[in-house]
Amino acid sequence: MLSWGMPENEPATIADLPTPALVIDRPTFNANRVAMDELLPGDKLRPHVKAFKTTALAQQLADDGHRGFCCATPREVEGMVAAGLGHDLLLANESLDVARLGALADQANITVAVDSDATLDAAVAGGVRSVLVDVDVGLPRCGIDPADAGRLADRARHAGLEVRGVMGYEGHLMMVMDPNEKAERVGVSMELLLQASDDVGGDIVSGWGTGTCLTNTWCTEIQAGSYTLMDTDYGKLGLPFELALNVVATVISVSKKGWIIADAGIKSMAMDHGNPTWEHGDVFFLSDEHITLSPTNMNDWKVGDRVRIQPAHIDPTIAKHEQMWMVEGDDVVDRWVVDLRHW
Amino acid sequence: MLSWGMPENEPATIADLPTPALVIDRPTFNANRVAMDELLPGDKLRPHVKAFKTTALAQQLADDGHRGFCCATPREVEGMVAAGLGHDLLLANESLDVARLGALADQANITVAVDSDATLDAAVAGGVRSVLVDVDVGLPRCGIDPADAGRLADRARHAGLEVRGVMGYEGHLMMVMDPNEKAERVGVSMELLLQASDDVGGDIVSGWGTGTCLTNTWCTEIQAGSYTLMDTDYGKLGLPFELALNVVATVISVSKKGWIIADAGIKSMAMDHGNPTWEHGDVFFLSDEHITLSPTNMNDWKVGDRVRIQPAHIDPTIAKHEQMWMVEGDDVVDRWVVDLRHW
Repeated sequence: MLSWGMPENEPATIADLPTPALVIDRPTFNANRVAMDELLPGDKLRPHVKAFKTTALAQQLADDGHRGFCCATPREVEGMVAAGLGHDLLLANESLDVARLGALADQANITVAVDSDATLDAAVAGGVRSVLVDVDVGLPRCGIDPADAGRLADRARHAGLEVRGVMGYEGHLMMVMDPNEKAERVGVSMELLLQASDDVGGDIVSGWGTGTCLTNTWCTEIQAGSYTLMDTDYGKLGLPFELALNVVATVISVSKKGWIIADAGIKSMAMDHGNPTWEHGDVFFLSDEHITLSPTNMNDWKVGDRVRIQPAHIDPTIAKHEQMWMVEGDDVVDRWVVDLRHW
Repeated sequence: MLSWGMPENEPATIADLPTPALVIDRPTFNANRVAMDELLPGDKLRPHVKAFKTTALAQQLADDGHRGFCCATPREVEGMVAAGLGHDLLLANESLDVARLGALADQANITVAVDSDATLDAAVAGGVRSVLVDVDVGLPRCGIDPADAGRLADRARHAGLEVRGVMGYEGHLMMVMDPNEKAERVGVSMELLLQASDDVGGDIVSGWGTGTCLTNTWCTEIQAGSYTLMDTDYGKLGLPFELALNVVATVISVSKKGWIIADAGIKSMAMDHGNPTWEHGDVFFLSDEHITLSPTNMNDWKVGDRVRIQPAHIDPTIAKHEQMWMVEGDDVVDRWVVDLRHW
C-alpha cells in the first residue's frame, strides 16, 4: 500500500501539507452555504455532487436541509448511497449503465433522467423505478424535443415507472454576463421546459445551476453545486458566493530571470476554462507538474514558500484530487476524501 | 468498497467496457516500442513514467532493456519501487518532499534532481544518496544557471552525495515543427548543458523527450514517455510512433438537430492542448461528462453505439483514469491499473 503522500503526523497548518494540495477555506464555504440557504432553502435546491465529488461535503448540505442530490455518473449515485445519502438521488444524465442503480433500488430512492426510447428501455431493463424526462431547452447536448416529452412520459408510465417530472439544463446561458439578457434568455428556455412539464406531469421541474440560480424562478428545484466552493470563472458573475477553493503548492525553484516555479501543474488544476489566477503576480504557464509564476516582487519569494493558486474551473479540478483539506486561516481543521470520482 | 464500475464478468470486447474507458491498442503500442528500440536501445532511453503512470506498462519497457526510469513526483518513485522497478530511478524534478525517497534508499537506486542550495539541502537532510544537477537550457521552468552548476555539484560532493551528472529539458522546443530549426535550437540548448556537464562531472547527460528524440544527439540518455501511446499533438510531428490510445465512450443521446452526445467529457480527457479528435466527424464541445459530436453521417449513429475519441494530450488524460484496457481490434486482452497517480 502506498503512502498517498500522507504526512506521518497530522498536518497542523498549511505548511505541513504534502503538495499540491486542494485546500478549502471553511469559513468561506460555510458563508456560501448560508447565502444559498437564503436564496434556495431546503428542497428548492438539489445540490449537484459533480462539482465537489465528496460525500463529506454533501453531508454538510444535507444537514442544512437539502435532502435531495443530483449526480452526473452512476458511480456518484453508488457513492452517495454507500454514504447513507440516498434519500432522493437524481442521476441528472442519460446512461445505459443503469442496472447498477436498479440494484440499489431497495436501499435508496433513485431517479434517472431519460431522453429517448433507448435510455428509457435501459432504465426499465435495469430495474430503475423512477425517471425524469430530460428536455432540450437550447443547449446542444442531451434532452428530448419538448414536443415529444409527453409521449416518452406515457411510455414510461406504461412500463410501470414513476414519472416525477422534467428537467432542462440551460447550460449555454450560465456565462451570459448581462443580468437582463440572462433573465430573458433563461425565460425562453424555461418556457420550453414548462410546456414539456404540462405534457409530462409529475411534481418536479428541475433546472440548473450556480450561474443562473439568481434568475431562474420557473423551476421547483435548482441543480447547483459550484456555489459551494466557486472558481474564478463563476467569480466573474457577481454571485453572492466567494471563492473557497485553492490549490496550495510549494515553491521548488527561483530563477534570477524573474520567475518562480511551484509544484502544481495541469495534473492538479483543470485548464479548460483557462489559466488559474495568483494574487501575488502573473501566471506564466503550466506544465504537467509545474506552474511558472512571475511575482510582482521577486524578493518576496524563496524555495520552500507556499503559494495559493485559484483554479478557473472547480469541477474538473477537484476530480483530479484524492482529498481536500479544510482550513481556517493557516490551520488545517479536517481532511475529506474525494470519494465520488471516476465512473 | 465501491465497484469501480467494473463489469461483473470480464469484458470480452470493447462493447462490454464501462465507459468512458481508456483503451490502448496493443499492436500499436508494441510497434512504438520496436520503433524506439531502433532509435534509442537499452540505457540510451530512460522512459518517463509521468506520461503513462502505470507500472505494468513500465515493466514492458524494462523487459525491452530500458532499465532506468524517470519520475516527476515522489509518488511515482514510490510506486516504481513497490513494483520492483527500482534499478535506477531518477526524480527528474525538484522537490522538498524527498525524505520519502531517502527512506527507500536501501531498497532502490534513487537519484534526485537539484537546482539550488535549498533543494540540495533537502536531499541531504532527507537521506537521498545521489543527485543530478538540473540545468536551465532555455525553458522558463526549473534548472540552475549553467555557470553555477559546477559550484552546486561541488557542494553536493562535499555533503557526501554522489553526483551522477546533469539534466536539461528543452521543453520549449518540443513543438517546433521545422526539423532544421529544431535541430539548430536544440543544439544551442544542448551546448549550455554540455558546458555545465564539463563543470559538474559524472557520466550522465540527460535530456528530453518524445518531441526531440530524433534530433537530440548530444545526450547520453533521453527522457521520453509519450512515444509509447502518443496523442494528436505529438502526432503532428512526423515521428515514427503511432497513436495507440483512445477514450472509448457510449452514445447516450442522438439529436435530430445534427449531433450525438457520448459519455466522455473533460473529466476523462485533458483539454490543455485543445479539443480531442474524432475520425467520423467534428467535435462540437465537451462538458464535464459529455462530448457533443457532429457526425459526417447522422444515419450511422444510434444510442448505445461506441465511439473512439483521440485525446490531444496523453499525460494528463491518463492521469484522470484508474485503469487502461489493452485491446487487439475489438477484443479486450488485458487491464492495467494506472497506479502512479497523485502525489
